[in-house]
Amino acid sequence: MVQTLAYPKKKQNTINRYDSRGTYDLRAIHHIINSTPVLHVSFAPNPEDPFPAILPMIGVMGSFEYPSADLDEPLDCYLHGYVSSRIIRLARNSPKGIPVCIAATKVDGLVLALTPNSHSYNYRSAVLQGYGQVVDTDQEKLYAMEKITNKVVPGRWEKTRIPPDNVEMTSTAILRVKIETGSGKVRQGGPHDDAKDENRADITEKVWTGVVPVYETFDNPLSSATNKVDPIPEYILKYVQNTTAENRQLAHDAVKEP
Amino acid sequence: MVQTLAYPKKKQNTINRYDSRGTYDLRAIHHIINSTPVLHVSFAPNPEDPFPAILPMIGVMGSFEYPSADLDEPLDCYLHGYVSSRIIRLARNSPKGIPVCIAATKVDGLVLALTPNSHSYNYRSAVLQGYGQVVDTDQEKLYAMEKITNKVVPGRWEKTRIPPDNVEMTSTAILRVKIETGSGKVRQGGPHDDAKDENRADITEKVWTGVVPVYETFDNPLSSATNKVDPIPEYILKYVQNTTAENRQLAHDAVKEP
Repeated sequence: MVQTLAYPKKKQNTINRYDSRGTYDLRAIHHIINSTPVLHVSFAPNPEDPFPAILPMIGVMGSFEYPSADLDEPLDCYLHGYVSSRIIRLARNSPKGIPVCIAATKVDGLVLALTPNSHSYNYRSAVLQGYGQVVDTDQEKLYAMEKITNKVVPGRWEKTRIPPDNVEMTSTAILRVKIETGSGKVRQGGPHDDAKDENRADITEKVWTGVVPVYETFDNPLSSATNKVDPIPEYILKYVQNTTAENRQLAHDAVKEP
Repeated sequence: MVQTLAYPKKKQNTINRYDSRGTYDLRAIHHIINSTPVLHVSFAPNPEDPFPAILPMIGVMGSFEYPSADLDEPLDCYLHGYVSSRIIRLARNSPKGIPVCIAATKVDGLVLALTPNSHSYNYRSAVLQGYGQVVDTDQEKLYAMEKITNKVVPGRWEKTRIPPDNVEMTSTAILRVKIETGSGKVRQGGPHDDAKDENRADITEKVWTGVVPVYETFDNPLSSATNKVDPIPEYILKYVQNTTAENRQLAHDAVKEP
């Protein structure tokens, strides 16, 4: 069996409820983060405020030190921010970096069972915790900006006007999150009801059970009013079609029992 | 002009970056929460742990005191949890309730511009902050459980085996979050580039710009191996078809300038 890297199980990331659905596998967790367009990033805004804050951000896994590192290797999470935003200011003011939690969840299906309590979603979720520090060299910033742009559409970076100019470089801030712990959770399969309900004909003859597959569709690209490039480039069309097909396949695969 | 209710702007929920995209309108914010299958809920796990935690949870806006309250009225957020989970235990041990932040984001499109920095997503996001308390009467618990089940598929509750039995009632915990602040952010329209790039033919003749509409598709329901109800009930088919059509329409509407 090939040994794969896993995040260490600590108190704060160990899955207790439905622990068979838990995963600590780096590749699985990093893949969920990379394939989710918007991540939710949580942090404590200030000591007087009792509430954590959550920001929707775009981010991607990567390693500036080992750029060829694969998804199953230790990676940082690069988050794209605005230079004067609160999270960036807080990160600048904490020597160790700002403690953040990053979450990504993809819904693959609605699972409809005999009883409300057995209802569920098929889903894949990933959570990372780590310290976010502001990237301070242009070289690493460009590395992260390229990765983030290519997350939106692979290969997009080099098809646009690059490099960013001075104003663009100074108005953009990149947060590099050193990951301390991570975990993922995956639910797949059909509805699981208790025998006490499955054995009652008055229930099973009345309640439909099954799965509604759910997936993110990328629709045909629409040119902007000022666009001058015709036809739509192949790398965009291919990516859009492949993403929809892959998402659909994943949602349908998730209907099968694991 | 009709006066609509808005969340008060406080320091922690005021949108500074791209403030024209911000909304404090109750109906808009509550609608995003209700139409997002999985919410991300952030909380501080314990005083020694520097990291906030994030849980994917299912939740819905509602008011047990004023069940007929509309989406544009003050509402609580009901979250579904397992009785021995960490967030529920913490909520039980805090007299005021546990301070949480709830986030929901829907991506409506990839916005591809001339330069990496002008790339964006069309999206609708909502963030709520409030104190979560464990619901302690069966009556309110049933109210919330029904609303949560009907979030998965409207009308589903009364089509299943109800009411929940004693074991189901005691293993389920419901968190009622009293909302203190809330805000939303909506980005729509095509790419917005600077004149310095739009006026350069060498760039505009090379870089395709436009929007890839993105939306959540609910696919045809698949019956479980043990299902005995045939054909698939109309209320499920209709909901699945309408949701996909509405999501698609929203993604296409978002391409237009606001």
